[in-house]
Amino acid sequence: MADSITQISGEDSLIARYFRPIATDPGAFNLDDDAAALRPSGDDIVVTTDAVVEGVHFLPNDPPDTVARKALRVNLSDLAAKGATPTGFVLTLALRSADEAWLKPFAQALGEDAAHFGCPLLGGDTVSTPGPLMISITAFGRVTPGKMVHRSGARPGDRVVVTGTIGDAALGLDVLKNGPAAAALANDAAAKEALIARYRVPQPRNALANAIRDQASAAMDVSDGLAGDLTKLCAASGVSAAIDVPSIPLSSAASALLAHGTVSIEAIVTGGDDYEILCAIPGDRFEAFIQAARQSGVAATSVGSIIAGTAAPVFLDAQGRELVLKRLSYSHF
Amino acid sequence: MADSITQISGEDSLIARYFRPIATDPGAFNLDDDAAALRPSGDDIVVTTDAVVEGVHFLPNDPPDTVARKALRVNLSDLAAKGATPTGFVLTLALRSADEAWLKPFAQALGEDAAHFGCPLLGGDTVSTPGPLMISITAFGRVTPGKMVHRSGARPGDRVVVTGTIGDAALGLDVLKNGPAAAALANDAAAKEALIARYRVPQPRNALANAIRDQASAAMDVSDGLAGDLTKLCAASGVSAAIDVPSIPLSSAASALLAHGTVSIEAIVTGGDDYEILCAIPGDRFEAFIQAARQSGVAATSVGSIIAGTAAPVFLDAQGRELVLKRLSYSHF
Repeated sequence: MADSITQISGEDSLIARYFRPIATDPGAFNLDDDAAALRPSGDDIVVTTDAVVEGVHFLPNDPPDTVARKALRVNLSDLAAKGATPTGFVLTLALRSADEAWLKPFAQALGEDAAHFGCPLLGGDTVSTPGPLMISITAFGRVTPGKMVHRSGARPGDRVVVTGTIGDAALGLDVLKNGPAAAALANDAAAKEALIARYRVPQPRNALANAIRDQASAAMDVSDGLAGDLTKLCAASGVSAAIDVPSIPLSSAASALLAHGTVSIEAIVTGGDDYEILCAIPGDRFEAFIQAARQSGVAATSVGSIIAGTAAPVFLDAQGRELVLKRLSYSHF
Repeated sequence: MADSITQISGEDSLIARYFRPIATDPGAFNLDDDAAALRPSGDDIVVTTDAVVEGVHFLPNDPPDTVARKALRVNLSDLAAKGATPTGFVLTLALRSADEAWLKPFAQALGEDAAHFGCPLLGGDTVSTPGPLMISITAFGRVTPGKMVHRSGARPGDRVVVTGTIGDAALGLDVLKNGPAAAALANDAAAKEALIARYRVPQPRNALANAIRDQASAAMDVSDGLAGDLTKLCAASGVSAAIDVPSIPLSSAASALLAHGTVSIEAIVTGGDDYEILCAIPGDRFEAFIQAARQSGVAATSVGSIIAGTAAPVFLDAQGRELVLKRLSYSHF
């Protein structure tokens, strides 16, 4: 049967060779069908979709395994921020050609991440394009009915919390583009590699999803820059926020670059691709949330408070002066 | 709040202006969030994903309203073939620029189709691309648990049934490309328009979904050509088929072009983009299925039988001679 399928079409052969081995969920029907099926579990199914485009979200010479991981993880990050447990994904792959040297490591890394995060490949579509590579993923998660965490629930008095560290991915991109960060870190290969890894391979905080579901009043992932994404969360919630800039968690590499004046704090809080979680935690749940984060191995840091009002969030330095941000975040248009 | 969102990013403004008005389902959360939610209904959720790429699946000068309808309908066609009732979709839109003259009619037509087919927009992602326009849609349908119709259930003795007419879309593309069909129909503007419409705007057979769910042993939609898709269905079912070529339903335009020798029957049975349903119906359910099709206003025609064996399906002409098909269908690679 595989032989006759091979005769039918290069597209089917490509799917059979590279993607069938990683489509292990029964609902994927071995990728032999036109659709997948999600069985009812009584939970809500959270649906998120994010695409990555060559030259926009990843660089043309990024390794295929990192492209695969990024494409899936940017979606896993959304599920984590919504308090949902991953349950599967579908993949649309737009390729210029069926290049085995690219597809093999791409599919292998995708399968590894799918297994690691418990998010199996359920189906997909492979199309040819004369343009840049594009990977569009729609991912599914399950959450207790009605318990998906929204952007809109933040209330004055809530603590503003971010996971991990902020700004590394934008600095990693700067290194890859031979920008100021690359020059400043010329003799620190380890720091450069660490920043590049943060750009290429996000670390979605799915381990924290249940704590977010149970404790956060509002949450989203930080994909377009902390300042802009916080502004969106506040706008959706009808609130404002005051952020203590020195509290924003930075990696040692980012701290050093900031201390040496290589980059500005503005670049760090408006750089994209962090894929950390930004959430609002009511004061009486803050300790429980930090405790849960610690147990799940994810750093979580309070960086300020939700305040009343509809003004844009303010970012205050150690002297209480407000940062003036020329732009808030990355926008495609 | 809309104003502050407009300030944040062109991408958010674009979503607010064009897509929020058509995202009427409560699970879309007004497109204010990072994810949508599908509430549990006890049904299986059927998931399908299909992308259309400018220059591959549609032509650069196809009107934006037809591009929108095609992008959604190729997915609705899959849901129909699986016996599922549409319940919503997410959209990934890769654009070179935020061109209002294109986006406005695109979004309006998408909203009209979403309403017409009961398949609301639930969420999406808008990204910039330096390459061709690409629209990737993941659509969801509901079906009684375990009742999704597969490619793999066809059994010897089943009737092979197709809906509508076959080959028109490929002829419409030929007209648009000023091929032989355009020359032959130079004085028949109505026929040309009808064929072009079949290429640009598929007619998904969702009205027939319940009959397929209840009566078909196997089904898929015909997207890459009848011959190739039947070969796939037979391979998945471990059977073969004998097709009576004169029984294949043709439009009057296709019949005329075939009669005049402008196109070959091979081109008709291997042309893509039909988006009709191909299914296998056990003999004892055939009359009920045809009756249900008639009641739902969808033409359904028996074109042959499933037979034992694993050879490729045979296409027999009026004299019982086997057609030799050089290629079976469209393949991207």
